[in-house]
Amino acid sequence: MTATLRLGIAGLGTVGVGVVKIVRKQAALLAQRTGRDITISAVSARNATKDRGINLSGYDWEADPVALAQRDDVDVFVELMGGTDGPAKDATEAALAAGKDVVTANKAMLAIHGRDLAEQAESAGRVIRFEAAVAGGIPVIKTVTEGLAANEITRVMGVMNGTCNYILTRMESAGLPYEKVFEEADDLGYLEADPTLDVGGIDAGHKLALLSAIGFGTVPDFDGIEIEGIERITIEDIRQAADMGYRIKLLGVAQLTGRGLEQRMQPCLVPASSPLGQLEGGTNMVVIEGDSVQQIVLRGPGAGEGPTASAVMADVCDLARGIRIPTFGQPVSTLRTAPSASSVLPAPYYLRMALVDKPGALAKIASILGASGISIDRMRQYGHSEPAAPVLIVTHRTTRAPLDEAIAAMQSTDVLAATPVALRIENL
Amino acid sequence: MTATLRLGIAGLGTVGVGVVKIVRKQAALLAQRTGRDITISAVSARNATKDRGINLSGYDWEADPVALAQRDDVDVFVELMGGTDGPAKDATEAALAAGKDVVTANKAMLAIHGRDLAEQAESAGRVIRFEAAVAGGIPVIKTVTEGLAANEITRVMGVMNGTCNYILTRMESAGLPYEKVFEEADDLGYLEADPTLDVGGIDAGHKLALLSAIGFGTVPDFDGIEIEGIERITIEDIRQAADMGYRIKLLGVAQLTGRGLEQRMQPCLVPASSPLGQLEGGTNMVVIEGDSVQQIVLRGPGAGEGPTASAVMADVCDLARGIRIPTFGQPVSTLRTAPSASSVLPAPYYLRMALVDKPGALAKIASILGASGISIDRMRQYGHSEPAAPVLIVTHRTTRAPLDEAIAAMQSTDVLAATPVALRIENL
Repeated sequence: MTATLRLGIAGLGTVGVGVVKIVRKQAALLAQRTGRDITISAVSARNATKDRGINLSGYDWEADPVALAQRDDVDVFVELMGGTDGPAKDATEAALAAGKDVVTANKAMLAIHGRDLAEQAESAGRVIRFEAAVAGGIPVIKTVTEGLAANEITRVMGVMNGTCNYILTRMESAGLPYEKVFEEADDLGYLEADPTLDVGGIDAGHKLALLSAIGFGTVPDFDGIEIEGIERITIEDIRQAADMGYRIKLLGVAQLTGRGLEQRMQPCLVPASSPLGQLEGGTNMVVIEGDSVQQIVLRGPGAGEGPTASAVMADVCDLARGIRIPTFGQPVSTLRTAPSASSVLPAPYYLRMALVDKPGALAKIASILGASGISIDRMRQYGHSEPAAPVLIVTHRTTRAPLDEAIAAMQSTDVLAATPVALRIENL
Repeated sequence: MTATLRLGIAGLGTVGVGVVKIVRKQAALLAQRTGRDITISAVSARNATKDRGINLSGYDWEADPVALAQRDDVDVFVELMGGTDGPAKDATEAALAAGKDVVTANKAMLAIHGRDLAEQAESAGRVIRFEAAVAGGIPVIKTVTEGLAANEITRVMGVMNGTCNYILTRMESAGLPYEKVFEEADDLGYLEADPTLDVGGIDAGHKLALLSAIGFGTVPDFDGIEIEGIERITIEDIRQAADMGYRIKLLGVAQLTGRGLEQRMQPCLVPASSPLGQLEGGTNMVVIEGDSVQQIVLRGPGAGEGPTASAVMADVCDLARGIRIPTFGQPVSTLRTAPSASSVLPAPYYLRMALVDKPGALAKIASILGASGISIDRMRQYGHSEPAAPVLIVTHRTTRAPLDEAIAAMQSTDVLAATPVALRIENL
């Protein structure tokens, strides 16, 4: 048994409390497995007096997370505050500068500042571990960087925002409109303080940026992701998709090809019978494809106290065991930058439009698609009571550019009653 | 870049050839990720002249794997020969004694001799890694021992023999009898030299013993597993199960409770809509449940050159990176032994019988079940052309002991035309 590993925990929300619980409940197990005692020296949180359901009086409190990160009795700084910049980043930098390893669940900070922070860690001879930042309890970072280390990763895909998946599956099962389920999710506490992070696809985009980086050995490139949220998905879209054998998922896809780094996070139609299509509620799924391993699928809880704390503590156990690999699985100097090529791979698309009720409207739409080189696989126009007629089109394979061009051309006509919705169909 | 990591590979079958290919093809990637060059110093195989489709002339050949394991220019001994005892074990022991780490895909050797070998490794300050021994390309050993290290593992389950799953799903999709599909699998090279290892559930049992050990921190206990093979499953069983919404899978289940260590590897009925029920062909799936993480499901190819070599090389990368955790995730001295409690958890059962065509036959069977305290949920007797009448019974929850007692009692009557088949129903 070597020296005790001493933690300083900044942020005592759901995940922080979960970490404290595991350190206490599983002390014997952790010592047996890692060969070291794991203890908590000090904690930090905005509100020191709030009742969190656990007794925290045994730990020193630091008002300032930077001071916590610099304490002599802290070996590993556990950053669970969140936020791209501000206290989380300040304290992470302070921890690295003070020679501490860092464990964080902060996908936003790493997706944006990951390269710089990894470089600081390397200069300091320290590491940043972030298993909890992607797909909650699923050990996907470890799977990609270590379990599949001998593979050239060819593609990563995933449903990685439990809130969006909850909303989409709940709309379908309860037959409720988006707005109603959004309210429900809010009442249940499923939404981030800024809900656009969830429903706008930003949070899932941060996760995809990190997965891409470790998978392809590229600098995290959040700005290169084509991101669309789920806000415009209607119950009608979900029903129509179901009719065609599909379900709508906020799906992330990343691949590195000769054209560059393709990264998309957007609602897609996926086959209802596929593993991704069957995913219910807050569960996450990540699919990893490599040249030797072919395809590995991981499924598990994407959020919540226990699962996320399990991931944080897996990183802590690694550090206790002396497992210290570079932040993104390889030295920062070897990370590549690749041009963004997010929309070059063709796919069929689902298009929903509302046409004003006048002769020739449908013909106008069809001829615009034809002029953009997009051929129609299926089309349906519905009987309607509203002034506008719902029209659904499934195209043959096309890329996004001509489709966007066609949609712009449609919008400059007088036949649309609303902005069309275009969803990629991923036949996994 | 620190010193080169030099491999000695014993066994050049499918997996060995796959490992050689990865070492060559991904040399740059492996160096980038691990910080070290990984090379092959020497190889060993029974037949040195066979054409394996790759040029092996650059490596020294050793006729004796023990000599290979002891070479000064070998840092890691890669054991891919297989077999519980004999050359594989001799060479593994020789490697450890000579101060080499060992990477192996040998589930049989570790399921039987794992404790002793792990002890030898610890005494020598070395480790044995065996990612490829369980579930092919799926990094399940790493997931359990590292990714879920902060969890008390409560249950592990899995479909871990691709050949059995191929046979069962092919019987269903093609409507072919067991014997016919068995022959097909043999022609395709899917079967072990001794096919009982596959279809008798032995191979999957070895894997379950290893999963239990790392999950629960127990000494591998292969003998404590209740094992049944798939040899007696008929196309009728598969059809009947499908009628009831189930599919038949060779399922391993292990849990450690107050009663002891429960380990079963047997054909079961699982819900057709569950992830395990949907598993097709040679794919493997492992389900891991822990107190914090809840449930993680891993799916991937269970065999084959690329996937298995990917797992072997993941272990090699770990060693190159200096990741060295104890063989079973914790020191051998801390591994517990638990009494075997394989059949204590009650479940409903599916029973298939062939009754001779005489009055009162069904009544006799029903009263025997009643006398053993087993109540019947559903029963069907089919019209038939053969002399014996097929009868299917689904029981309410019962344990195995009274069921075996009832089956023995039935067999001592004169109403059975064949030995009954009893399959556990797992409502996952």
